[in-house]
Amino acid sequence: MGGTPPLSPLAPAAFPKLPAIKGARFATAQAGVKYKGRDDVMLVHLPAGTTMAGVFTRSATRSACVLDCQEKIGAVSDLPAAILVNSGNSNAFTGKNGVESVERITSAVADELGLPQERVFTSSTGVIGQPLPDDRIRAKLSELHGALSEDGMEAAARAIMTTDTFPKGSETKVDIDGQFVHIAGIAKGSGMIAPDMATMLVYIFTDAVVDQPVLQDMVSALNESTFNCITVDSDTSTSDTMLVAATNTSGIRVTESSVGFMEGLRTVMLDLAHQVVRDGEGATKFVSVHVTGAANDADAKTHALSIANSPLVKTAIAGEDPNWGRIVMAVGKSGAAADRDTLTIHFGDILVAENGWVSPEYTEEAGATYMKNDAIDIHVDIGLGGGAATVWTCDLTHGYISINADYRS
Amino acid sequence: MGGTPPLSPLAPAAFPKLPAIKGARFATAQAGVKYKGRDDVMLVHLPAGTTMAGVFTRSATRSACVLDCQEKIGAVSDLPAAILVNSGNSNAFTGKNGVESVERITSAVADELGLPQERVFTSSTGVIGQPLPDDRIRAKLSELHGALSEDGMEAAARAIMTTDTFPKGSETKVDIDGQFVHIAGIAKGSGMIAPDMATMLVYIFTDAVVDQPVLQDMVSALNESTFNCITVDSDTSTSDTMLVAATNTSGIRVTESSVGFMEGLRTVMLDLAHQVVRDGEGATKFVSVHVTGAANDADAKTHALSIANSPLVKTAIAGEDPNWGRIVMAVGKSGAAADRDTLTIHFGDILVAENGWVSPEYTEEAGATYMKNDAIDIHVDIGLGGGAATVWTCDLTHGYISINADYRS
Repeated sequence: MGGTPPLSPLAPAAFPKLPAIKGARFATAQAGVKYKGRDDVMLVHLPAGTTMAGVFTRSATRSACVLDCQEKIGAVSDLPAAILVNSGNSNAFTGKNGVESVERITSAVADELGLPQERVFTSSTGVIGQPLPDDRIRAKLSELHGALSEDGMEAAARAIMTTDTFPKGSETKVDIDGQFVHIAGIAKGSGMIAPDMATMLVYIFTDAVVDQPVLQDMVSALNESTFNCITVDSDTSTSDTMLVAATNTSGIRVTESSVGFMEGLRTVMLDLAHQVVRDGEGATKFVSVHVTGAANDADAKTHALSIANSPLVKTAIAGEDPNWGRIVMAVGKSGAAADRDTLTIHFGDILVAENGWVSPEYTEEAGATYMKNDAIDIHVDIGLGGGAATVWTCDLTHGYISINADYRS
Repeated sequence: MGGTPPLSPLAPAAFPKLPAIKGARFATAQAGVKYKGRDDVMLVHLPAGTTMAGVFTRSATRSACVLDCQEKIGAVSDLPAAILVNSGNSNAFTGKNGVESVERITSAVADELGLPQERVFTSSTGVIGQPLPDDRIRAKLSELHGALSEDGMEAAARAIMTTDTFPKGSETKVDIDGQFVHIAGIAKGSGMIAPDMATMLVYIFTDAVVDQPVLQDMVSALNESTFNCITVDSDTSTSDTMLVAATNTSGIRVTESSVGFMEGLRTVMLDLAHQVVRDGEGATKFVSVHVTGAANDADAKTHALSIANSPLVKTAIAGEDPNWGRIVMAVGKSGAAADRDTLTIHFGDILVAENGWVSPEYTEEAGATYMKNDAIDIHVDIGLGGGAATVWTCDLTHGYISINADYRS
C-alpha cells in the first residue's frame, strides 16, 4: 500500500458505543499477514445454541473461504461456533493452495476452541492472488483464545480494516413485548463496492433467539435494500461476506412476524452500508439517488444504479457542478424504460428539469450552491409508472485514483 | 470548459493526408455557438446520387438531431445531400425547443443549398440541456456555402472537436477489379465513450457506387466490432452518430460480396475508433482486452467489457501495476459464465496465471516492466468454449477526473 489515506471527510464523529452481546466474545492480534504494527486478525467465539445466517458475493471467481462459508451456513447445530477473519490477504484466486489454507485454519481453530470444524467460519480480505501465510495466523490462535472478551467488538472492527479510513460499527436495541434484545455489528470496506454485494465484510450479532431459516430469510431480504443498494465503483469483490449470529442468550424469541426486530436489523445493516459509502475511496460527497415513477421497481433500481455508477455523474458531483445533463445521459443509457419528455429531476428540494427540459424556475446559481453540500440528494421521476428505488454512492475524485493506482505497490 | 487539456500522449504523430472524395465538399466557420476564436461548425455538401447510411446511439434520451437523422436515413433519393455539425452544444434534453432548432437549421440549409430538407442531416455535440443558439449557425450558412471545397476535410475534423485533444482522420483505398475506390473519414470523441456506440460523431465518405441497403448493412455489421467495442468510461452519449456517404462519383460499383471494400471500410472505422480511445479523457495507456475460450461470443464480449470498464483494473493500469487479481475480479463479476480454475491470463506474451493461480514462471518484475508500455495487451482465456471478443479501452487517471470535474464550469 502506498501510505495510509487520510480520514474520510464523511466519517462519523466517533465510533459508537457497542453493547456487549452476551456470549459473543472477541479477540484480536498482530499476526503480520501483511501489515506490521497493527492487529490484522480477529477471532469471535459464539456460545452453544448460536444461530448463523449469511449472504455472500455472487462473483464467479469467489474465494475459497467464501465457498467454505456457503457450504456450512445453512446447517443447524447446537454447538458453539467461531468466526476468524484476517486482513491484508484475501486468499482469492490462490487455487488449490487457497482451499488448503482454509482447511488448515478452520481445523486449527476447531482444535484450539474445542468445537467442530463445521462451525468455524473464516473470511480473508486484501490483495488477490497471493498465497495466504496461514501459519502466521495459526501461530496466534492460542493468544487469541486467551484474550476472548465480550468487550472486544471495537478492536475487531479495527483489525479487519484494509483501505478503510475509519472502523465501522452500529447498534440498536429492540423492544420485544417489553423486553429488549440487542443488535450490534461491525463492517469493513471502502473500494470494490457494488451490489452482490460490496467489497465488504460484515459481522452482526444479536442476543435474540431466532431459528436459522427465519434469520436467513430476514438477512437475505434486508440485504436487497441495504448492502445491495450501495455502490462506490461498480466493482464487485471476490470475498464479500456478511455473517449474522444470534446467540440466543437473551432468551427472548423472535419470529418471522417480529416487525420490530426486522426494523432493528435493517437499521444496523443500513447504517453499516452507509458507513461503507462514507468511506468510499476518495469520497467527499455522500450521494442518495432516489428514482420514482419507473415502470417497475426493477427498472427504478436499474436507473438508480446507472446514475450512481456513471463516472461522468460522479466526477461532476466531485466538482460541485450541477450538471444534470449527465443524469439525463445516465437514465438514457441504463437500458430500462424512459421517456426524455416525462423526466423530472430534483436536487434536494430544487426542481431542476421537467417536461424534457430545464425548469424555468431553475437557476444555475441555486444548483451550484446546493452542490456544495456534503450530502447530495438526487431525485429522478421517470414519469411512467409506480416503480421506486433508492441507492447510495459517493463522488469520484482524485483520491480514488491515488488510492487505486498504487495499491499493492 | 476549464482550459484545454494537454495533447494526449497516445496521439498519432500527425493527421493523415486525406484524399479528396470527388463531389464531397467541406466548409467550416466560426459561429460562436459556445467556443470563441475557433471553427465550431462544419458543412458538407454531397452530390446528386449520394447514398447515405448511418448508425446512432440507442440512448432512451437521445437528442432531437439524432431522432431527425434516424427518420431520414433509410430513404433513397437521387438528389444532393448535406451534413451540418456544430460543436459546443449538443441540443440534447432541450425539449420542444430542441426539435424546433433542428427544424430551423435543416430548413435553412435546404434553402441555402437548394436541396430538399429530407436530405439535410445534422449533429450537435457539447453540453446537454442548454438551448442551441441556432441563429448563430444559420447566420453562417451563406459563408459556409461559398467556402465549400473538396480539400476541407481536415478543417472539418477540427471544427467538430470538443474535449478532443487532436483531430481524428483515417483513409484507405480499395482495389475493385483493378480500379481504386477511396474511403476517408473523420471523427470526434474522447469522453462519454461506450458501446451504443460512443460519445462520438463519425463521418465517412467514399466515392464508390453502393446501393443504400447494402451500405447500411455493411455499416451496421462493422459497427459491432469497431465502435461498439471501445469504451472509455462506460457512459453513453445522447448524441452518438455515424453517417457514411457514398458519393457514387467513381463509377465503380460495390456490392454485398465486395469483401475488399468491407475490409477497407472496417480499417477506416477501426482506426477512427482506436483514435477515439487514444484520446480518451486523461488516457496514458492504450489497452486491448482479448477474451477467448468463453462459452460463446456474447459471453466473451461481456467479460471483455467488464474488464475494460472496471475502475479498479483501469486505475491499476494507470499506476503501471500488474494487478491481475483485479482482472480475476472483473471476470467474476461480469455475469457471464466463468470458472475460477480454468482461467488463463496473459499480459502480452507473459503468462501470468493459469489453473486458478499465478503461474510458477511469472515474476512480478516481468509484469511491472510490461506495464510500463504505452500499449497494453490483456488476454484472458476463460477455458470453457470457443467464444471470443476484443475490446479497446484506456486507463483511468487523474486527468479524467480533472477534465470531468470541471467541464462546463
